[in-house]
Amino acid sequence: MSTPVDPLQRLATLLARLPGIGEKTAMRLALALVRAEPEYVRTLAEAVGSVHETLKLCRVCCDLTPTEICARCDDARRDHGTICVVAQPQDRMAIERAGVFRGVYHVLHGVLDPLAGVGPAELRVDALLRRLQSHDGAGAAQDAVHEIIVATSPNVEGDATALYLSRLIAPLGVKVTRIASGLAVGGELEYADVTTLHRALQERRSL
Amino acid sequence: MSTPVDPLQRLATLLARLPGIGEKTAMRLALALVRAEPEYVRTLAEAVGSVHETLKLCRVCCDLTPTEICARCDDARRDHGTICVVAQPQDRMAIERAGVFRGVYHVLHGVLDPLAGVGPAELRVDALLRRLQSHDGAGAAQDAVHEIIVATSPNVEGDATALYLSRLIAPLGVKVTRIASGLAVGGELEYADVTTLHRALQERRSL
Repeated sequence: MSTPVDPLQRLATLLARLPGIGEKTAMRLALALVRAEPEYVRTLAEAVGSVHETLKLCRVCCDLTPTEICARCDDARRDHGTICVVAQPQDRMAIERAGVFRGVYHVLHGVLDPLAGVGPAELRVDALLRRLQSHDGAGAAQDAVHEIIVATSPNVEGDATALYLSRLIAPLGVKVTRIASGLAVGGELEYADVTTLHRALQERRSL
Repeated sequence: MSTPVDPLQRLATLLARLPGIGEKTAMRLALALVRAEPEYVRTLAEAVGSVHETLKLCRVCCDLTPTEICARCDDARRDHGTICVVAQPQDRMAIERAGVFRGVYHVLHGVLDPLAGVGPAELRVDALLRRLQSHDGAGAAQDAVHEIIVATSPNVEGDATALYLSRLIAPLGVKVTRIASGLAVGGELEYADVTTLHRALQERRSL
């Protein structure tokens, strides 16, 4: 740009640092903000600026929450004896959206990835172990944890994380399970990739 | 969401109002902001919040600029007798990036689109006409305008806008031209769409 500090270019450059936002998209968003109602832009700026103050990690499950203890951990109607372990908050959201799980969660904030320097110490594994040893930290005496469902993604890192957790937790006498992987429901076998097909055959079940 | 005001969900909802940002992308961006460095998030929030104060329309060409007159209009080395008319600031940027045009610009901020209620009054047509009648508003006595290149996109609205401008401006004795359309350079004829192929044939040139 020819002007030394063009605020439009500067905003676009900042936006382009967000994941999945390229330079062109960033400029499109910056221009949309210029055209947007001042009221909306002000609200958005405040919401962005306050994100670190308003959100923290749930004291029990490490999910992002504006409160000390998240809504799931604080819900007495849920089964606090079954913990679904996920890599990221968005995985928890995806499972909640499906509306079939009534237990509680634990967010690791990553998966084991030695090449990227992510070992057990970088994940919220300690907090998970503490939940198994003491009773569930939320509210009064809850059921002891009887099952850990590892719902990390079915890829190398997700599988390694699941295996690691199972070796760590099984000796404590808690059942560790893994979400199933195979053909997507409604998908066409013909179009499934080789690895998925391989896994779907390996994990076949008797009817 | 179960909590009444979840700041994460609120931020995602605000982000999803931006063009091309769906709900999932918005949540991904919101989570990225939670994880980003506070310094970056603060800077971004300020840049978003100040976008309306720092950017205005160039007094001459109506492009977005932090100054009274934009860098192009203020540049005496450019040919102020040739005005390239574009629909949006991002079109001006695309042409500047190509680095082949040394004239000045005029940004209409839209194209004629009667179905969407956009008529000539909604575009910066008056400002363009004023540039043709007086001399170029930027700096001292400049060359009189001798050519208007209409560089709106080659679709129904862009073509209609070009035709409208040509009928309006030609009587003033100023040459009005239109950017060429046809096959993309480096593209394969075989994959060109029917309309482009049609236009490329219609607008064939003698060699």
